Amino acid sequence: METILSVKNERVKQWKKLQTRKGREKAKRYLIEGFHLVEEAIHYDAPIVELLISEEHEDLAFKYPLDKQVMISKEIANQLSETPTTQGVFAVISLEKNQATPTFTKPFLCLDTVQDPGNLGTMIRTADAAGFGGVVLGSGSVDMYNSKVLRSMQGSHFHLPIFEGDLTEWFETFKQQNVPIYGTELNEAAVSYTSIPKTDAFAIVMGNEGNGMQADLLAKTTKNLYIPITGKAESLNVAVAAGILMFTLKK
Amino acid sequence: METILSVKNERVKQWKKLQTRKGREKAKRYLIEGFHLVEEAIHYDAPIVELLISEEHEDLAFKYPLDKQVMISKEIANQLSETPTTQGVFAVISLEKNQATPTFTKPFLCLDTVQDPGNLGTMIRTADAAGFGGVVLGSGSVDMYNSKVLRSMQGSHFHLPIFEGDLTEWFETFKQQNVPIYGTELNEAAVSYTSIPKTDAFAIVMGNEGNGMQADLLAKTTKNLYIPITGKAESLNVAVAAGILMFTLKK
Repeated sequence: METILSVKNERVKQWKKLQTRKGREKAKRYLIEGFHLVEEAIHYDAPIVELLISEEHEDLAFKYPLDKQVMISKEIANQLSETPTTQGVFAVISLEKNQATPTFTKPFLCLDTVQDPGNLGTMIRTADAAGFGGVVLGSGSVDMYNSKVLRSMQGSHFHLPIFEGDLTEWFETFKQQNVPIYGTELNEAAVSYTSIPKTDAFAIVMGNEGNGMQADLLAKTTKNLYIPITGKAESLNVAVAAGILMFTLKK
Repeated sequence: METILSVKNERVKQWKKLQTRKGREKAKRYLIEGFHLVEEAIHYDAPIVELLISEEHEDLAFKYPLDKQVMISKEIANQLSETPTTQGVFAVISLEKNQATPTFTKPFLCLDTVQDPGNLGTMIRTADAAGFGGVVLGSGSVDMYNSKVLRSMQGSHFHLPIFEGDLTEWFETFKQQNVPIYGTELNEAAVSYTSIPKTDAFAIVMGNEGNGMQADLLAKTTKNLYIPITGKAESLNVAVAAGILMFTLKK
């Protein structure tokens, strides 16, 4: 097994560049961290380039495919980690854009300019749990390979198709497929989500935490839903609202 | 209006101590930050001791009660802030434990050793939005006056009764009041939440993110609920699960 102990090693510099969106897009690779995510990557045959294991976790090496392992020093692990206490296990993964053909027999979650990494990752994880057919990440959203998004997704991007693209074009496709598009902007035309019958196929759109959905997209939705608030809170967290809608609307 | 410009001022030192649980409990005060929270505190008659306004926001001073205002320097605001970019507006509030008598005609959310501040705050905000009667924060949970909890609650603690106490004693009370207690631990006896009829009064218990509910509490629940997962995600985020349960179970 290869061993790299100096933080000044050129490889370490390359790995650290994966902590930024620019670095990830240039290298066409991203970095995941922690036992759970690495195990999910292996289990779901993600395109793993390298597995980095801190020397203090040498005993774990047997758990992982040997041919791709690189032993690293604790110091390197601390520099690569984006958590307060690292588990010392990382994987470098090829960043391959999803080219799958979407199937429209299951619901879709569309994310319009969502900016908080934790919210974005949690919504993708929830769509996975709810048995959705896929997620469409509209332009202007936070990068899905951001370390906080990866932590919140808990590996869901390994088993749920995530498409990045222009939501206007996706809305056209949904319409051609007779898939209703539900917006989530509180306005006069909005109807309570409880009035919508459960169905197999629909698209639900969650907007930006502060500004909601983009106006031109909102105009193209089939219906606009709201969740009635009976207490004194002004609104729900976007990931909580998405969870309520996804689990209630799907058949 | 009083003005304090030096970060070395004794008052600044006292305010900074409110950033820790120990400091808050000793001073019996806590600190909130930002326009929205401060406005909620004023609107709901929270026991405000002082309002701190950064000198660069002098123009905002007219919006707030004048008698409690202290003008502070930008440097002090930056030291008191626990956000990347501060809005420069703070309030020091008396920490008065909730002594209200609970009414059992509405549902209750019980939190058992929940550790993540964002999850805790989001669940309290959701209980508020769902029109719950109150929240019981069991011992061993994160401090509700932690700045991250306060940010996620978005002021819900100003309008929803939050009780801190021993959940075992609360469970006894719920039983005396014929209020069903729903646990949320995935085990053999668990039933799908969709099989529970909507009711006005019940208690739902959310457990620790990693370890779930404490075993002795779990044994005392009326029923144990789970949310069926149809995709490949292993679980839901606890705040998302709480949101789905609260909005689905209440009448």
